[in-house]
Amino acid sequence: MAFKIYTKTGDKGKTGLIGGTRVSKSHIRIDSYGTVDELNSFIGLLGDQLNDDTHSISMLREIQDRLFTIGASLACDPEKEQRMKIPDLKESDIELLESEIDSMNTVLPEMKFFILPGGHAAVSTAHIARCVCRRAERICVAMQEEQLFIEPIVLKYLNRLSDYLFVLARYAGHQLQVQEIPWKPR
Amino acid sequence: MAFKIYTKTGDKGKTGLIGGTRVSKSHIRIDSYGTVDELNSFIGLLGDQLNDDTHSISMLREIQDRLFTIGASLACDPEKEQRMKIPDLKESDIELLESEIDSMNTVLPEMKFFILPGGHAAVSTAHIARCVCRRAERICVAMQEEQLFIEPIVLKYLNRLSDYLFVLARYAGHQLQVQEIPWKPR
Amino acid sequence: MAFKIYTKTGDKGKTGLIGGTRVSKSHIRIDSYGTVDELNSFIGLLGDQLNDDTHSISMLREIQDRLFTIGASLACDPEKEQRMKIPDLKESDIELLESEIDSMNTVLPEMKFFILPGGHAAVSTAHIARCVCRRAERICVAMQEEQLFIEPIVLKYLNRLSDYLFVLARYAGHQLQVQEIPWKPR
Ligand code: B12
Ligand code: B12
Ligand code: B12
Ligand SMILES: C[C@H]1O[C@@H](n2cnc3c(N)ncnc32)[C@H](O)[C@@H]1O
Ligand SMILES: C[C@H]1O[C@@H](n2cnc3c(N)ncnc32)[C@H](O)[C@@H]1O
Ligand SMILES: C[C@H]1O[C@@H](n2cnc3c(N)ncnc32)[C@H](O)[C@@H]1O
Ligand SMILES: [Mg+2]
Ligand SMILES: [Mg+2]
Ligand SMILES: [Mg+2]
Repeated sequence: MAFKIYTKTGDKGKTGLIGGTRVSKSHIRIDSYGTVDELNSFIGLLGDQLNDDTHSISMLREIQDRLFTIGASLACDPEKEQRMKIPDLKESDIELLESEIDSMNTVLPEMKFFILPGGHAAVSTAHIARCVCRRAERICVAMQEEQLFIEPIVLKYLNRLSDYLFVLARYAGHQLQVQEIPWKPR
Repeated sequence: MAFKIYTKTGDKGKTGLIGGTRVSKSHIRIDSYGTVDELNSFIGLLGDQLNDDTHSISMLREIQDRLFTIGASLACDPEKEQRMKIPDLKESDIELLESEIDSMNTVLPEMKFFILPGGHAAVSTAHIARCVCRRAERICVAMQEEQLFIEPIVLKYLNRLSDYLFVLARYAGHQLQVQEIPWKPR
Repeated sequence: MAFKIYTKTGDKGKTGLIGGTRVSKSHIRIDSYGTVDELNSFIGLLGDQLNDDTHSISMLREIQDRLFTIGASLACDPEKEQRMKIPDLKESDIELLESEIDSMNTVLPEMKFFILPGGHAAVSTAHIARCVCRRAERICVAMQEEQLFIEPIVLKYLNRLSDYLFVLARYAGHQLQVQEIPWKPR
């Protein structure tokens, strides 16, 4: 009980990176891992709604682990040489997303149109997570544009993850026998 | 199976507008339709929670269709003359929102206070969608401020849509016999 | 019925602060209370999912009330002397969050790791609300950095609120007997 979660050190708007440097909470680096954190939470919610699909649930746990790795990578002060100690992200993590996409696609009808999100909470939540993932990607790209250090593999992972979440939305709908509504511009 | 959803072309942070121009994913135009996409997903989730209200569910489908139209409009490179081919948004789409608002209001008590979101997942989700709609509106307005082209009717539609979502939150609560909690500043 | 929720005055992207000043909807001040509004909606959803925990539900209602107070404070034009009339936020509001954190912590195992969000919709939604709270905090800090007026207690409240939401996520999981999954970097 001596332990307190609230340290109050951030009450005036500053916080610490890994390495100890103090920066403003409005720094784009904080926004980047804050948004990855938000994505991680939505992925948690998505898992909660995929009742029976234990395979996808365990994939989502893997992904959450990887998002913490990404968070740690983004939270490192690039000026300090702490980065080395951080668990890193590998090409094989991206290949895993790709092989999952491919295998889910084998049971899905080919897509010729955009699909209206909806039909079941699991489907819609996958679409929301997809969009939050793309929001995180945009912030990471903005950081790169500002010449702030970001591992290129982080961008690649987020890009593939949003495609994975799209296909998972379709796959969940297929399992739940929800009808896909294509967008047919009037 | 030859078909792949993941093209990998965006792995380094660039993407294509309608018309083919490559831009950074951190471009505010991408943020604008990315946020409309997020809104669209939350509207999907909202529909999933309005079990019995088939009228509102089909209204939400209509709205999703219109949001894709808005997405296409925002995704057009304004320098290219592609815009003409895009299905457009009409004054009558806004009038439809207004007439729905008016008709839902006939069964609702007059509002004299702000209302605390909550009471049922359908109600809260409508409030969330309302807020995401307003976030999309803010980004679209920022784009206009930066002198980037945006159809004025898009702003008008988003402005009315958030009012529609507010009234739908109240209406859903009314149907579900959820008590409204007014904000009474202490 | 003469009453209309939609005033159409904001159709072109401008809106009014308390005090009457017209500003662009893309102004960071609007973004700040718009994001507090989004947070408020997620807190509504969180309450909807805490079925039996009436104590936490009523805490969340209190918090929603305080968020409207914060919204009013942020919506005041700092140039006008309207602020005085606004219901204010007190140190005791923050102390309440702290004592709630402390009391929930008495039943929770000490934390030695980060926790993967998930296990039950209530838990995940608390994590989402936590992240949206931190997003609101970031925008408020950015506003302060731009030398725009913001009550320091607003930052303090949001900082503590995200810690409260984290502990509530754990507490809800504990009540629901959901197993916590710690992040163990591979
Ligand atoms: C980056 C970061 C995050 C990231 C997550 C990490 C990631 N990799 O994505 C995000 C933004 C998601 C985050 C969230 C939170 N964080 Co944080 N985070 C950090 C930070 C800056 C670095 C941690 C890290 O990734 N290290 C790299 C990894 C590889 O190192 P590691 O050897 O595994 O060791 C870390 C973990 O074991 C963890 N850990 C050990 N004991 C505890 C205890 C608690 C309570 C927590 C949460 C973590 C934790 O911290 C270790 C050292 O950094 C530290 C501060 C710092 N400068 O070190 C704060 C820090 C660990 N976080 C903290 C807190 C309070 C939180 C939140 C509860 C805040 C909130 N209200 O939302 C949440 C919890 C989220 C969760 N799901 O569990 C506090 C813990 C305070 C305490 N009393 O121990 C710290 C110390 C910051 C501070 N000074 O207040 N955080
Ligand atoms: C704008 C846009 C979006 C908007 C949606 C469109 C809107 N109007 O709001 C948003 C941001 C929501 C979006 C999302 C996605 N999109 Co998109 N999008 C585009 C873009 C830039 C223009 C499409 C458009 O609106 N055309 C205007 C309308 C009126 O034209 P249309 O005649 O109806 O024809 C379009 C549709 O029929 C659609 N279509 C036809 N076949 C397929 C197949 C797939 C898989 C998809 C998704 C769409 C699709 O694309 C046609 C041509 O543009 C194109 C790239 C480009 N420059 O053309 C990519 C594109 C169509 N999108 C693509 C993808 C992968 C997606 C996502 C799966 C990404 C993700 N992971 O989230 C999602 C799917 C969302 C959904 N609900 O179905 C890919 C499809 C790749 C492929 N193998 O076919 C494209 C080609 C971009 C690319 N090179 O990677 N997108
Ligand atoms: C800040 C603000 C907000 C904040 C909330 C307030 C807060 N404190 O956080 C946010 C951003 C969340 C918000 C949301 C909305 N708002 Co507002 N808001 C304002 C604003 C700028 C100030 C209100 C305030 O906080 N005053 C300070 C408090 C202490 O004053 P008060 O004495 O308690 O009196 C206020 C309330 O009683 C309230 N009230 C009285 N009657 C009504 C009727 C309605 C319909 C509403 C919503 C409120 C309301 O307004 C009074 C005067 O400001 C006013 C415009 C203005 N310049 O005054 C608009 C205003 C009250 N909002 C309005 C609207 C429409 C909404 C939304 C429905 C918009 C939407 N589509 O999402 C939602 C409703 C949210 C909800 N949960 O109920 C309209 C009401 C129009 C009308 N016909 O009466 C106004 C007048 C703006 C306008 N001109 O369009 N809003
Ligand atoms: C499907 C379409 O979505 C757009 N696009 C690509 N990446 C993102 C992102 N992170 N956020 C929003 N939109 C994006 C591109 O225009 C692509 O063609
Ligand atoms: C109800 C109040 O909300 C504010 N307002 C109007 N449009 C937006 C938006 N897109 N996002 C956030 N706040 C907005 C104005 O101050 C209005 O008076
Ligand atoms: C737990 C870690 O989260 C980061 N942090 C602190 N405040 C915020 C915020 N509002 N948004 C995102 N990240 C934040 C700091 O780096 C802290 O150490
Ligand atoms: Mg992509
Ligand atoms: Mg409006
Ligand atoms: Mg904090």
